[in-house]
Amino acid sequence: MLPTILDLASVRNAYKAGLSPLDLMEEIIERCKASDDPAVFITLTSPEALRQAARDLLAKAPEPNSLPLWGIPFAVKDNIDVAGLPTTAACPAFAYHPEVDATVIARLRAAGAIVIGKTNLDQFATGLNGTRSPHGAPRSVFDRAYVSGGSSSGSAVAVAAGLASFSLGTDTAGSGRVPAAFNNLVGIKPTPGLVPNVGVVPACRSVDVVTVFAATVGDGIAIRRIMEGYDGRDPFSREATPAALPSARPRVGVLESTEREFYGNGQVEALYDAAIDRARSLGAEIVPFDYAPFRQAAELLYSGPWVAERLAAVKDFLATNAGDFDPTVRTIIEGARGYDAVAAFEGKYRLEALRQKTKAEWQKVDFLMLPTSPTTYTVEEMQADPIVRNSHFGRYTNFANLLDCAAIAVPAGFDAKGHLPAGVMFVGPAFTDDALAPFADAMHRTLGDGMGKDRTATLPEASRVEPVPDDMLPIVVVGAHLTDMPLNHELTRVGGYKLKTCRTDNSYRLFALPDTVPPKPGLVREPHFSGAGVEVEVWALPAEAFARFVQKIPAPLGVGKIMLDDGDCITGFLCEAHAVVGARDITEFGGWRHFVLSHSSAI
Amino acid sequence: MLPTILDLASVRNAYKAGLSPLDLMEEIIERCKASDDPAVFITLTSPEALRQAARDLLAKAPEPNSLPLWGIPFAVKDNIDVAGLPTTAACPAFAYHPEVDATVIARLRAAGAIVIGKTNLDQFATGLNGTRSPHGAPRSVFDRAYVSGGSSSGSAVAVAAGLASFSLGTDTAGSGRVPAAFNNLVGIKPTPGLVPNVGVVPACRSVDVVTVFAATVGDGIAIRRIMEGYDGRDPFSREATPAALPSARPRVGVLESTEREFYGNGQVEALYDAAIDRARSLGAEIVPFDYAPFRQAAELLYSGPWVAERLAAVKDFLATNAGDFDPTVRTIIEGARGYDAVAAFEGKYRLEALRQKTKAEWQKVDFLMLPTSPTTYTVEEMQADPIVRNSHFGRYTNFANLLDCAAIAVPAGFDAKGHLPAGVMFVGPAFTDDALAPFADAMHRTLGDGMGKDRTATLPEASRVEPVPDDMLPIVVVGAHLTDMPLNHELTRVGGYKLKTCRTDNSYRLFALPDTVPPKPGLVREPHFSGAGVEVEVWALPAEAFARFVQKIPAPLGVGKIMLDDGDCITGFLCEAHAVVGARDITEFGGWRHFVLSHSSAI
Repeated sequence: MLPTILDLASVRNAYKAGLSPLDLMEEIIERCKASDDPAVFITLTSPEALRQAARDLLAKAPEPNSLPLWGIPFAVKDNIDVAGLPTTAACPAFAYHPEVDATVIARLRAAGAIVIGKTNLDQFATGLNGTRSPHGAPRSVFDRAYVSGGSSSGSAVAVAAGLASFSLGTDTAGSGRVPAAFNNLVGIKPTPGLVPNVGVVPACRSVDVVTVFAATVGDGIAIRRIMEGYDGRDPFSREATPAALPSARPRVGVLESTEREFYGNGQVEALYDAAIDRARSLGAEIVPFDYAPFRQAAELLYSGPWVAERLAAVKDFLATNAGDFDPTVRTIIEGARGYDAVAAFEGKYRLEALRQKTKAEWQKVDFLMLPTSPTTYTVEEMQADPIVRNSHFGRYTNFANLLDCAAIAVPAGFDAKGHLPAGVMFVGPAFTDDALAPFADAMHRTLGDGMGKDRTATLPEASRVEPVPDDMLPIVVVGAHLTDMPLNHELTRVGGYKLKTCRTDNSYRLFALPDTVPPKPGLVREPHFSGAGVEVEVWALPAEAFARFVQKIPAPLGVGKIMLDDGDCITGFLCEAHAVVGARDITEFGGWRHFVLSHSSAI
Repeated sequence: MLPTILDLASVRNAYKAGLSPLDLMEEIIERCKASDDPAVFITLTSPEALRQAARDLLAKAPEPNSLPLWGIPFAVKDNIDVAGLPTTAACPAFAYHPEVDATVIARLRAAGAIVIGKTNLDQFATGLNGTRSPHGAPRSVFDRAYVSGGSSSGSAVAVAAGLASFSLGTDTAGSGRVPAAFNNLVGIKPTPGLVPNVGVVPACRSVDVVTVFAATVGDGIAIRRIMEGYDGRDPFSREATPAALPSARPRVGVLESTEREFYGNGQVEALYDAAIDRARSLGAEIVPFDYAPFRQAAELLYSGPWVAERLAAVKDFLATNAGDFDPTVRTIIEGARGYDAVAAFEGKYRLEALRQKTKAEWQKVDFLMLPTSPTTYTVEEMQADPIVRNSHFGRYTNFANLLDCAAIAVPAGFDAKGHLPAGVMFVGPAFTDDALAPFADAMHRTLGDGMGKDRTATLPEASRVEPVPDDMLPIVVVGAHLTDMPLNHELTRVGGYKLKTCRTDNSYRLFALPDTVPPKPGLVREPHFSGAGVEVEVWALPAEAFARFVQKIPAPLGVGKIMLDDGDCITGFLCEAHAVVGARDITEFGGWRHFVLSHSSAI
């Protein structure tokens, strides 16, 4: 009944077909028991607590799928507070027992989701590889020799292995994206501040972001929407206005050849090139851009004063428990002691100068498409050179939070031997979180490499992300605004475009208004009239332009809903009835254009 | 021919009447010679260079007033680069000879303005009082015993004494506002990033702003508009979108009694209270708000890691030239050595947490009206306790740049003896720079205390700032959208506000539409009908919200122009005539509200 990958559509279908959340919890318990990777979880929700959560859900909302995440099991990176489970940040001596859920957890639970456990991570979320934990290294679901990616290592593996429908990670350098690439998953990294961090152990507080690992872009976006929204207890929480991107023929920035670096991994490079081809086939305009200022910003995250944020987050604990740290993590965090406040501000100046340079690149492209990670390593290779090889993973991810970007990482297929996957990442300006999703989803759907470890799974139609409608509003024009008519420029010069030529239903009469300059008709509905309809055009206008356009309409004209013969009902030009008293009824001409043509030829 | 105060209108009128820029330059040379304050300028433009500038202007643009600042003389704080004059920051050993104008200077010169000299300042712009300079302390133009305010001390005195039409200052803590208060001037402090800092010696680079001292708000705003605009060579330059404020009945935040602190200066407190009364008389709604989070943010500027920015700006020079510093300035800057990078980030966290708290206050008010400086001191008093007494001046100014605000300081009149002036300051959210100006200007014009040292001057009408039309569109509502009616929330939740309650002209009939939920009326115009009009409300909606609102109006309702009995003709709710056939004519009730009230009481 249940597939390997527990994406939202599959679980909802199972619930609709009669599966109980109690049944699913038993399945989760069994799957976790049978898991071949002992390093995924730090703390599992107890079987009894899972069953109780299912019973509580059924008491609160008995109807299947009656809450947005009704009975959906999810895993939580162990630096996010879940009341009832310890928070450890993969440092046992650091553990505490939160009494309150993190804001994101509270929102997801209120939506019906059930926490199945707390997952392993690079300690204090310091790393991109997954090996920096006393609980061992979770492994790629495709080859146990290879790292899972990190720092949200266990969270990614939990979803890819079918232990949870989705999971939460956090992302400072790339922790919510790199593990997605290594496990054939989607990683949703919101714009900083969109999702509140209340109840999250900080890594770099000013640039930390809670992320989602999911089987599809649609799943991830749906979950992010439930988590997002201002919470003033987080100093960096923001009230966001979604930003738009063109829905047709986006300009997609790709690496110029001089900025290509895959550390010798030709397989990942080939998958990146294949992704570029697929993007082109989806209608994208491929635009090489200069990655240098982004790369230089990325380098600041570990080679600049931002490491002091990591020290700020744990300095009291470090003072008493230095021996309890992972040695690599400790080395990195203690490296912050070399920075004074002057260096901190100078780092900020450098970042802002680079941000100005990136603006020129953003003029050329709508969003970027980058390799998520340029390569991967075995656990053994990583442990042999843990700082340098870790840094390779962050080459294309580290800038995104510093430069206030939204990002979505999607699978990019498997190497030629079908052995290991790689990913590509779509990166857009602040608050393009929703706007990036349709293209990212479409790219994922061109692949056919399944979801997570199930490479034969089909991405469900239910999770398809439809293009975000442009911020355009329709208006029915009847007279002087029709194509080629004297006032048509009022529509075109503000960016309007024609959607269709069509007819009203048969309840409308058209009149030639006397004494109008330029000549204008008046459309009036008479429900009991039965004519042949009136030819009209439907145009799309940007919302602000629509507002100003309506403000300028002079009496006796105005706008109201117009019934079209194709069943649509769209706002358009109507005329006050008093103004057509005594006016010539020209309904028989079938439309203003025909009247004007016959009228002018008659002259 | 020329008045004491050289405001833009007076100079333009003189030019129009035949004065030559060469004449004005001679006048400036004479006035500077005759000045009784030797501490105003650090470097004067030479008489010959002034004459040459006038000749160059005449060659380039012979027609009087044919450039926006044609022949307007201005003074420049000596931390802003002017090619041809040294930049010293009031530290002779620091002096350098810039070859290129600062961006703001280049823009002002291109507009026809002429630099008359570089003015004295608190060294490295570190201070709010004007005494921290090896060139002596400029004095209040009203009493030479008193400080001029700082750090832009000489710039303020130059304008107040009639030596320049306007001047440039810089403002980190309040340096562009405090000296305005002490010299009966206007101080325009732009939102950080609006005016580029390229060519400005940094104080705290992340929060420094170039400001304008002017005789009127209109002058100051006109000059700021010439200076503003993105320059990517400044890491903190921003591409700004002006923010709107309500143009009618603004909610003006004033200090709650617990946050009032005038350091015993009852005269300034009385002037603040008088300003509140004047604001009320101009139609403001006076709203006491909680200043505490703003004050706490203000305290961070000198009692937190931001002083490290001052050290970052001069650290190399300090290493070699510690003895060349003003002792107080050196003490402050060297205090930064106590802060490490952790403290820098922790300061940022604290600031962001306070910013979240201020959001609740911004919900209550449109902008703030605060004392510019709560008190003043003699030079002797200031030198006796230079750090503490300086901090008093910044009590209400220090937060503005840290919290990304726009501010305009205007005169608030003189103490009871007519001896010393004080100021009030209007502070709004980012990019309300233009939107604040009409009210600030109107407040200035209620005073009648002249401009600068000329207390009998009349503010010229030519510099009056008309209210900025906000991005709001009016709509006449007739039924369920009236105040307290069931659909009123559709207006309020998108930021709409009521402009007026009024009546249509007498050509409208109102009908109760059958079968509408909630119950709705239909307004129909009959030009030959003569009733008593229908009570309606005019609301203002943001343009986008207006567009979406109109899109949602269901048939048979729509919008068209409605004639009001006060002569206005505004887009509002009309009803298709076919829908009122057989409906009850309720025109006699005089409006939907009266009908609903009588109807509900009848049940």
